[in-house]
Amino acid sequence: MARWQPGATQRLVVAAVDLFTEQGYDATTVSQIAERAGVTKSTFFRHFSDKRELLVAGQETLSRLLADGIAEAPSSATPLEAVAAGLRRASGAMGPTNREIGPRIRAAVAASTELQERDALKSVGLAAAMTEALAARGVPGPTAHLAAELGVLAFKRGFAEWSEGDSSDGEGLADRAVAALDDLRAATSSLG
Amino acid sequence: MARWQPGATQRLVVAAVDLFTEQGYDATTVSQIAERAGVTKSTFFRHFSDKRELLVAGQETLSRLLADGIAEAPSSATPLEAVAAGLRRASGAMGPTNREIGPRIRAAVAASTELQERDALKSVGLAAAMTEALAARGVPGPTAHLAAELGVLAFKRGFAEWSEGDSSDGEGLADRAVAALDDLRAATSSLG
Repeated sequence: MARWQPGATQRLVVAAVDLFTEQGYDATTVSQIAERAGVTKSTFFRHFSDKRELLVAGQETLSRLLADGIAEAPSSATPLEAVAAGLRRASGAMGPTNREIGPRIRAAVAASTELQERDALKSVGLAAAMTEALAARGVPGPTAHLAAELGVLAFKRGFAEWSEGDSSDGEGLADRAVAALDDLRAATSSLG
Repeated sequence: MARWQPGATQRLVVAAVDLFTEQGYDATTVSQIAERAGVTKSTFFRHFSDKRELLVAGQETLSRLLADGIAEAPSSATPLEAVAAGLRRASGAMGPTNREIGPRIRAAVAASTELQERDALKSVGLAAAMTEALAARGVPGPTAHLAAELGVLAFKRGFAEWSEGDSSDGEGLADRAVAALDDLRAATSSLG
């Protein structure tokens, strides 16, 4: 029954990003996106509530993967080691399409306040999911909150580097995200 | 010429927050807000582009104060000491009205995804302003970014405590925000 779903979701996201790039976010309609993706408008609305939601497709999946990775880290893991496990888990769900459309999504977001707002709320959601998963491990509130914020910053930086970098360099998203987390941890020692 | 401005801005914000509390954000129109505040719709639009902007009124002022405080901290100040100076400067601009309407604004934001998005982007803007001010002091990128994020978390926590707390306790917003920053700094040592 859901056999068509993965393909349609991905086609809709790619079609939308192409149209946003070509003619801007505001000028792009749901009908145009559906047509470009080769689906009906009602299929569009089975996947997304509106065109804005296309650009944060996968937020719930990403939140779940980050939280799962944190939950399943060894009990001896420090808060940041647990976050790193979450980053690795979430990175595993990102494929070539995510990498390819990443820069175009960032360009569309940079050009639209409406998308910036939605993107900012996505970050809040990811941080909340990680904070909750850390708290469930017994990490105290301020530490959990802080570790989750570092996790979001690291994932965003890792993703940006990965999707803009040389695709033949062989360094994966997970390694880049964890390296960004290490940089942030190192920066804590110079906060004063 | 601008003599009417401060009063009208504040009246519009209070009127809007009252209406959002009474009947919800979605059901509240610009006309109702203007009428409640005793001004015309065109006066409303001289102050705000739409009703959503009411709830982040003062974002630019707040960004400027945070950045000014950071810029004017002694050259010997550590990154977090500079952020604390920014928090103190910004706190000085918050008065009894801010304190009184704070909890109602948070309730309105909690009830509206649209407002959550706008609020999330406000935090991004405040962090960007602080990051830039820290970078201008020569603080390296990751440290500046991290210190700014801690500053936003601290200001939000401090403001929430201040506006929800016992108004006779005598502890000001600045002290609460700086205490929250101290808590976050302490939490960095248990990140692992």
